[in-house]
Amino acid sequence: MKVSILYSGGKDSSLAAYILRLTGHEVELVTVNFGLLESYRPAKATARRLGFRHRVLKLKNEILDRGCTRIVEDSHPGNGINYIHREALKEVAKVSIAVGDGTRRDDRIPKLSIQEIRSLEDSYDVEYIAPLHGLGYKTINRLTDEILEYRKDLSEKIEKSDYEVEIREFIKRKGYSIDKIFPMEHIQSRVIGFKGDLNG
Amino acid sequence: MKVSILYSGGKDSSLAAYILRLTGHEVELVTVNFGLLESYRPAKATARRLGFRHRVLKLKNEILDRGCTRIVEDSHPGNGINYIHREALKEVAKVSIAVGDGTRRDDRIPKLSIQEIRSLEDSYDVEYIAPLHGLGYKTINRLTDEILEYRKDLSEKIEKSDYEVEIREFIKRKGYSIDKIFPMEHIQSRVIGFKGDLNG
Repeated sequence: MKVSILYSGGKDSSLAAYILRLTGHEVELVTVNFGLLESYRPAKATARRLGFRHRVLKLKNEILDRGCTRIVEDSHPGNGINYIHREALKEVAKVSIAVGDGTRRDDRIPKLSIQEIRSLEDSYDVEYIAPLHGLGYKTINRLTDEILEYRKDLSEKIEKSDYEVEIREFIKRKGYSIDKIFPMEHIQSRVIGFKGDLNG
Repeated sequence: MKVSILYSGGKDSSLAAYILRLTGHEVELVTVNFGLLESYRPAKATARRLGFRHRVLKLKNEILDRGCTRIVEDSHPGNGINYIHREALKEVAKVSIAVGDGTRRDDRIPKLSIQEIRSLEDSYDVEYIAPLHGLGYKTINRLTDEILEYRKDLSEKIEKSDYEVEIREFIKRKGYSIDKIFPMEHIQSRVIGFKGDLNG
């Protein structure tokens, strides 16, 4: 069965896609973009390297605006990112029979509550699949080390495709300071292939 | 890496074991027994059919006694089964680097809270892995239908190896009525092989 996974090019969403493919799903990776920056490019490149179909989902600027307004109000990205993630899942759910993401057991942002999961499934008659919800950080680190080749770097340096890239840009353009909202040293990872593939 | 999965011979724990094997784990299935009945036999037979290593974990009668006392007090199996499940996980965790089970996203019994999961992982320096925690009933039904050959029947008729078998026996021997505690018509499943294996 076909399942669409929200995809940032990071190791969590890559691992989620890998597990879903192993269990017999036809996986499509979906990267959200608001048209501000071409920040979907790294995810698209990584999806190709891993052999997954990929598409860019254009979301309305209104959603980014609303999410960023919340982030600036809160001086914290949590609620705004959760809002954008929920809207992205809903948009994908409209045209899918199964949607998923790479959120982990110990994640807080972005993450759906159990009530939000049930509401999504019922409203759109869709399966929501989160293969990493039963896995802790030790297990995920071990599996990604075994399976994926990736590069770790500071959040600002690495090329990546998560919501944060366009959120930062939007907030900067509005004239607000980013440094108070996002932690400076945020180690992130970008997947560059499957282990073994790069040796050949 | 080796992971020990609590195993009842049912479709959930079989699916969990299957996913963990696919993701590169050396899976050992573990069925709890208190020495009252040889109720581990169906699970042992199913584990063999699926090609997994299997062992029986003898737990102290004291644990069954304490769980059943709680069940009789509550007139409901919830807390007692959760207690037995936690004690079983702890016992396995003592000699393992990773433990898991087939509990689902929408399960209530047995199921660890996030606090109990973290306490288990920290106390025993173990990974707790629950591959079905991010999957709803639709997804699990679909996957088990695709992957497993199983038989559905009423809980009392089918040969099975879950905690309930010895709990019922223990409570009966103590002279209490079972019918008020366990619902009469409880549809359960027993896995009899992988799809396709039985055609050959």
